[in-house]
Amino acid sequence: MRRKPGDDRMLVIGERINSTRTKIREAIKARDTGHIIREAGGQIAAGASYIDVNCAVTTGDELQDMDWVLSVIQSNIPGANICIDSPNHRALEKGLRLCKSKERPFINSITAERARMKNILPLALEYDTKLVALTMDESGMPATASERLAIASRICDSVKKAGFDIGNLYIDALIRPISTEPEQAVEYLRSIKMIKDLGARTICGLSNVSFGLPDRGLINSIFLAMAVSEGLDAAIIDPTEKHVASSLSAADALLGSDEYCAKYIKAFREGRLI
Amino acid sequence: MRRKPGDDRMLVIGERINSTRTKIREAIKARDTGHIIREAGGQIAAGASYIDVNCAVTTGDELQDMDWVLSVIQSNIPGANICIDSPNHRALEKGLRLCKSKERPFINSITAERARMKNILPLALEYDTKLVALTMDESGMPATASERLAIASRICDSVKKAGFDIGNLYIDALIRPISTEPEQAVEYLRSIKMIKDLGARTICGLSNVSFGLPDRGLINSIFLAMAVSEGLDAAIIDPTEKHVASSLSAADALLGSDEYCAKYIKAFREGRLI
Repeated sequence: MRRKPGDDRMLVIGERINSTRTKIREAIKARDTGHIIREAGGQIAAGASYIDVNCAVTTGDELQDMDWVLSVIQSNIPGANICIDSPNHRALEKGLRLCKSKERPFINSITAERARMKNILPLALEYDTKLVALTMDESGMPATASERLAIASRICDSVKKAGFDIGNLYIDALIRPISTEPEQAVEYLRSIKMIKDLGARTICGLSNVSFGLPDRGLINSIFLAMAVSEGLDAAIIDPTEKHVASSLSAADALLGSDEYCAKYIKAFREGRLI
Repeated sequence: MRRKPGDDRMLVIGERINSTRTKIREAIKARDTGHIIREAGGQIAAGASYIDVNCAVTTGDELQDMDWVLSVIQSNIPGANICIDSPNHRALEKGLRLCKSKERPFINSITAERARMKNILPLALEYDTKLVALTMDESGMPATASERLAIASRICDSVKKAGFDIGNLYIDALIRPISTEPEQAVEYLRSIKMIKDLGARTICGLSNVSFGLPDRGLINSIFLAMAVSEGLDAAIIDPTEKHVASSLSAADALLGSDEYCAKYIKAFREGRLI
């Protein structure tokens, strides 16, 4: 039980505007302004504090696509907080240059891999961003909590050495599917406190945990509740998915982040809960 | 994150055969054998390891009612594990004398109140039971984790002094509604580890947490997931309620208590999940 009454509410980054999703890819190709606005607005209405924007797998020009998506969101939802998401540092830079996020934008993401760190960390410093870092290096993805901690610790050291404030570093310790590795959720949950003790924050991309299982929203939502209660600082999720939205509303009410459960009761009245 | 892979699965005590529920009260009065068998069997099928039996608020004779309910359950489900539930030590004794529970039966419950301790603790020793203890004394119910711990600690001392093994003592730290006291879930969750560090086990009567809120099953189920992940040892719940059943199945899968998620997948196929 790491979260205490009065702690900040967990930060929600809406994951839907991602070009790995067919409908988003089509909307980007077709320059379908309405679709992008609805996706951004819907996620904000459902409680997202940031909107992730990923244009990496359209077949066109990622930099032009990033430009278009950002201009659509920013001209229709002024001040929307943005998380620029790409493995390509040129696309990240393009996004950051155009970004009018009201709060400090996110870069999603670096890893412990040298090349990625070298290309992307300077952008985080130049544009004064928050920064997502995956616990992944040249040798792959960690399995245990201690392996996650070891990589996170190396990332913290490199980032600090470069002069970046690790209070703005969000470590994603990469949850793996429990269907094939039953101990993975426990190892992930244990890593949350260990990583926070380094001074960094923690973030979770949720949906891998349930890969290969039926009723994935249920597994995701129960895992999210456990992670929030462990002190998870942020999650990249679909806040419009009913299981996830229900779990978040209930967790906020239970952990004292929703005074007198007012938001929970509102979500219930609006039919947003399971 | 207190629960580790390989820890025992949380113990589920089915709460439905309780005379505070109108249908059970009517079934007891009418000596409706079929109703009691269905309630017991249904809870076991849904994953209950123990069946709670409470006959305290029928208008008849509690001792005779206890006798009848136990004989119905035990002659139809031989070896069913029983949790004898009454504030009345004579009804408890009657139940314990008749009880043919395959595993050590539960007594539900003592408190830190002297009279209750004095009358009931000798029964736990004589019949070699597991024992539920509520963190409640002559001055009322605790609000903070430390107040809960203080009462739990006094209960442990008294019980140990009498020669009872506190490995069989299950402390219920009495969750209070978050609708009027927003900090209560966090205080309760914090108390779990503190009480386990005394050497006792922890048990939770779930439903008070959501009193006064809509969609109570959702709040109960998310709270249960958090408590299980904190290391809660047992819960007195309705395992046939879909929210609770879903949360338990998902939590078992996530915490490594359900190898390769086989039970989770079965529950999904049988339509028992939300």
